[in-house]
Amino acid sequence: MLEHGGRLLKAAREYAMAPSDWLDLSTGISPFAWPAPPIPAQVWQRLPEDDDGLAAVARDYYGASDLLPVAGSQAAIQALPALRGRSRVGVIAPGYAEHAQAWRRAGHAVDVRASGRLLACPSDYDVIVLIHPNNPGGDVFAPSALRDLHARLARRGGWLVVDEAYMDATPQDSLCASAGRPGLVVLRSAGKFFGLAGARAGFVCAWPALLEAMRRRLGPWTVSGPARYVLRAALADRAWHEQARLRLREASGRLRMLLARRGLEPAAGTAFCQWCRVARAADVHHALATRGILVRHFEAPASLRFGLPGDAAGWMRLDAALGDVMDEVAA
Amino acid sequence: MLEHGGRLLKAAREYAMAPSDWLDLSTGISPFAWPAPPIPAQVWQRLPEDDDGLAAVARDYYGASDLLPVAGSQAAIQALPALRGRSRVGVIAPGYAEHAQAWRRAGHAVDVRASGRLLACPSDYDVIVLIHPNNPGGDVFAPSALRDLHARLARRGGWLVVDEAYMDATPQDSLCASAGRPGLVVLRSAGKFFGLAGARAGFVCAWPALLEAMRRRLGPWTVSGPARYVLRAALADRAWHEQARLRLREASGRLRMLLARRGLEPAAGTAFCQWCRVARAADVHHALATRGILVRHFEAPASLRFGLPGDAAGWMRLDAALGDVMDEVAA
Repeated sequence: MLEHGGRLLKAAREYAMAPSDWLDLSTGISPFAWPAPPIPAQVWQRLPEDDDGLAAVARDYYGASDLLPVAGSQAAIQALPALRGRSRVGVIAPGYAEHAQAWRRAGHAVDVRASGRLLACPSDYDVIVLIHPNNPGGDVFAPSALRDLHARLARRGGWLVVDEAYMDATPQDSLCASAGRPGLVVLRSAGKFFGLAGARAGFVCAWPALLEAMRRRLGPWTVSGPARYVLRAALADRAWHEQARLRLREASGRLRMLLARRGLEPAAGTAFCQWCRVARAADVHHALATRGILVRHFEAPASLRFGLPGDAAGWMRLDAALGDVMDEVAA
Repeated sequence: MLEHGGRLLKAAREYAMAPSDWLDLSTGISPFAWPAPPIPAQVWQRLPEDDDGLAAVARDYYGASDLLPVAGSQAAIQALPALRGRSRVGVIAPGYAEHAQAWRRAGHAVDVRASGRLLACPSDYDVIVLIHPNNPGGDVFAPSALRDLHARLARRGGWLVVDEAYMDATPQDSLCASAGRPGLVVLRSAGKFFGLAGARAGFVCAWPALLEAMRRRLGPWTVSGPARYVLRAALADRAWHEQARLRLREASGRLRMLLARRGLEPAAGTAFCQWCRVARAADVHHALATRGILVRHFEAPASLRFGLPGDAAGWMRLDAALGDVMDEVAA
């Protein structure tokens, strides 16, 4: 299994510190979570039903004509490579490593490349997988450029797959509105923007035949009743969406400045996190962990990703710790 | 997609009756649900973690040395056929139709047979899939006979798959304690006995190499945080388990008598439901539905499955409706 952020219990054991004492900045999940209401007993007890209204609310929120709820975008990432024959697949780097792994496991020929290279040579590939905005690489694309790329791929039966897990803060850049066209697959996650990573809910926006193939592959009842119940309300809460976008943008800017002040000028960022190339990334990661702050360490390229603190205490704690740690690591 | 019970919203639309006015007896889910507590905000917000203690509590409850939490036994049913090469597969009939469909889709040669035939000719198959106790067929097997069957299959690299979704009321008949041995796969569901079908949680009990292959195929975070939180407590609640077993046995016996009194002598049953072969099954199903009672209709063999009413009003309503309906259908 690949390593991921969010492994707080493991860190808590390794550093012998209670989970509740940690500041977990190891994921790109928003700390400004949509407040989940109590779950009615019936929702736990009954099988989830596809016709409960979730799909309609989601079509409205994402602006997509056709979509399928899935148990997190991860479920779609795993299933997608089985839905076409052996292909040449170009996957964006650096990015979420599960994409390349899933296509490789399904027997495709996978090339992991910087986005510039993928966009320059689309004819080298049958499928191009982008993450937009990219995490941790931070790449941002013009929607019109992506629509052109899709058209070039689709003309010869190819696919453009766009993982928009972090798109909710910048919905104007989404391709969801075009995702009814054959050859365009857009993946959305409810975990990051809504701060509901535990719910395991996401959506695939694509043309009907692909959605039907994916539905068949994943089988019935893949999203839990409580997750469907919570999502239905969260996706409809427009006032909250606006407020959350403002808070994320404000916090992300603040984090960028804090890191720069401490000698960790971010190389890239999204509204959800900042990414810093650091020569001694492992040492900084360890020194922060000894202080109960968990960030995400990438080995190649040597780098750290910082999620957003959710409250004043978190901001102060991160700032103070980085002051000490950067002196310590430099010494 | 195959038809399943529990499609209350569809029935409510077809019969123009509000969902809350129905008595839904269309599933084998216990009406005596374990009472799910409120979910802490952190459980919604964080990614689920494998090392949260759920596996240990489950090993204890199932008496299995090795197991993997999955998003309902359905998730395992779909994944299992991909984990071995093309095989001759014998699947019990009549039973949960997803088994045969999953093995067929993965390219295996599937034979759907009565259990007597499967047990008599194990050398015809590389894999035998049983449901124990069977639903709706009601077949019950001696654990020693199943262990012998497993030994015969395993000797030549075969598998015995036992779907124990309805085993919680009769844990003494479970094969979970043997499921560390290569070639034996036991599927358990948390939805039926705990009345938590919305949670989408189940377990695969099997030998470590198979569990690792399934974990790789399903990927990370397949069970939601809220489901893991609730299951951890439900599986540990031993006093509740005992009480629920008593209530299920009592209610199942009462349902058998009620149906017999109304001219629907059950052909088979489990602690969770009763199954009646009825020549005019479709008519009885429809007549009950016009009265807001949803039961499960099977076309072949023509039959109806009745789940358990959960309260006094439900029992009275079913009894009164059957009185009318059986007269009406006979007329």
